Amino acid sequence: MTLEAIRYRSGSLQILNQLLLPHQTVYEDIRSVQDAYEAIKSMKVRGAPAIAIVGCLSLAVELRAGAGGDDPVTFIRESLCHLTSARPTAVNMGRAARELMEFAENESMEKNSEQLRESVISWIEDMLERDVNDNKKIGNYGAQHILSGVPRDSVTILTHCNTGSLATAGYGTALGVVRSLHALGRLKRVYCTETRPYNQGSRLTAYEAVAEGIPATLITDSMAALTMREMDITAVVVGADRVVANGDTANKVGTYQLAIAAKHHGIPFYVAAPSTSCDLSLESGRDIIIEVRPAEELTSINGVPIAAPGVEVWNPAFDVTPHQLITGGIITELGVFLPSELQAALTGRLTAL
Amino acid sequence: MTLEAIRYRSGSLQILNQLLLPHQTVYEDIRSVQDAYEAIKSMKVRGAPAIAIVGCLSLAVELRAGAGGDDPVTFIRESLCHLTSARPTAVNMGRAARELMEFAENESMEKNSEQLRESVISWIEDMLERDVNDNKKIGNYGAQHILSGVPRDSVTILTHCNTGSLATAGYGTALGVVRSLHALGRLKRVYCTETRPYNQGSRLTAYEAVAEGIPATLITDSMAALTMREMDITAVVVGADRVVANGDTANKVGTYQLAIAAKHHGIPFYVAAPSTSCDLSLESGRDIIIEVRPAEELTSINGVPIAAPGVEVWNPAFDVTPHQLITGGIITELGVFLPSELQAALTGRLTAL
Repeated sequence: MTLEAIRYRSGSLQILNQLLLPHQTVYEDIRSVQDAYEAIKSMKVRGAPAIAIVGCLSLAVELRAGAGGDDPVTFIRESLCHLTSARPTAVNMGRAARELMEFAENESMEKNSEQLRESVISWIEDMLERDVNDNKKIGNYGAQHILSGVPRDSVTILTHCNTGSLATAGYGTALGVVRSLHALGRLKRVYCTETRPYNQGSRLTAYEAVAEGIPATLITDSMAALTMREMDITAVVVGADRVVANGDTANKVGTYQLAIAAKHHGIPFYVAAPSTSCDLSLESGRDIIIEVRPAEELTSINGVPIAAPGVEVWNPAFDVTPHQLITGGIITELGVFLPSELQAALTGRLTAL
Repeated sequence: MTLEAIRYRSGSLQILNQLLLPHQTVYEDIRSVQDAYEAIKSMKVRGAPAIAIVGCLSLAVELRAGAGGDDPVTFIRESLCHLTSARPTAVNMGRAARELMEFAENESMEKNSEQLRESVISWIEDMLERDVNDNKKIGNYGAQHILSGVPRDSVTILTHCNTGSLATAGYGTALGVVRSLHALGRLKRVYCTETRPYNQGSRLTAYEAVAEGIPATLITDSMAALTMREMDITAVVVGADRVVANGDTANKVGTYQLAIAAKHHGIPFYVAAPSTSCDLSLESGRDIIIEVRPAEELTSINGVPIAAPGVEVWNPAFDVTPHQLITGGIITELGVFLPSELQAALTGRLTAL
């Protein structure tokens, strides 16, 4: 089976509540933009691509029911503004909002309210389909690139955080590469780091792997180098929060350490991300600000304290991996590129941020 | 204040129950060898040096009360055999048992029961004192060596797991070096990894630091490389479960990854361990077998499940850091040695295992 984190058909939307995973599998109805806003804010849905998709789909659901009346453009603008404010750092929602608003304004010049609603709904449904298709392309390009180095053998992959169906419109980015390798019958095993402090690896990636029968082994973040030495890892594949022009990549904290360990062991290190996660407006990773999150994420788990009271904490949410350590390549829906090739490959294809 | 994990005076012994840390500070009476056996087995006391000390001190307490009657040698032999079986992999208890038994048998040739009890008690009390003194020497040698590279500045140290008063007879090994730097007024800050999956860093090292006013910051294991890049780390200092003849070092899992990251950043990497943790009978780290522990340590915390049910787990308890990565040196009570100097420096000074 394929894990469905987002269930959409015309006029109806349900999401898998990620706060209850892995212990309960509960789908919740999203009937309005406000429902989606609350689900995003409370992290029932997470992952930058998934946030954008759920936000836009909730708008489609309301439009299908006739929301906006005689002035759908105003309704669309206010809805997108509200959705973008739920987690303002998620770049994909902001990008989707700008593109959709531009489309709606153009359409409104020549269409009546009912026709406008229909074209906006189609645009959003296309976005869902395009996102899943882009992820499948990422999966296939990545799998072929990795397999080109090992013509006959099965491969063993190490990944970090959650980059699967639960973080995207479906299929996933780095975990999409793992899915493609599994579908080709060439995946021996994937090792997933638990990904402290928020445990996306042990809660979400492990859940996806178990749900789909992908052979997976959970390790702590500290075991990655030992796993590389002992378990014949073919490649390390991770996702990205943002890839900048020179290929430097911001991703979940711990990615940088994995890249150093991969380099030490001579194991190719790949970043898998749609071109919409590439931000050519920044020249290097030095320009990316590191978000620091609350101490409680380290000092308690499910509300139970696990650390000595009074100790200071540093909790950066992500780190930047310099392009020199991305030795395998950057896997996009357009192909696999070396960091030095990325800017030329994408130039002209991206809407500026 | 100095944290006391073991409280001993003639005829009386108390230990800090580490199962209740960091939330409760409870000392428990150890009145007999059987009490010590149970405390070791249930991990109320942990850390190879601390296990040996508590085991032997419990014997001293019983001997002070006249245990063994007219045949103390038999009582001592049976007690040591029982204590060694509580956690058979802890090398220090076995070594102490062999040395103490040899001493007791020699003494018994020329002394009566009462005199024998007295000399064995003295031997054990000397062992406690020697262990703490050795740790203080380790702390001072390590601090001087680190400071020799930075004549005037305060230093920032990164450490792993717990190697402090809670793991030894007192003061600690790697954390002893941190204590010495703090006592000299030259410690700016120590960064402690939480040390998954058993959280010795967040529970125990953080507890010791808070208790003694040592400036400390807790990070996840995955943040260590980023911390090295961003926080001006002067040196990485870790403990050891076993150092073999060529300097290869078995220690808590994650140590190997830290050593790779330190090398990448050009930061000196030190191992701090008493000469009794050095095992010259093994030539290289390849001969050390990696202990694999239960999956539950990763999949639950305080009995609460935290991972997706059904996922496979690999949980090696330690890893081996090759001597080439120990760029700072191996800090012992005899001085600081390069891995290549260790065997010559220790030869003749160690009782064979």
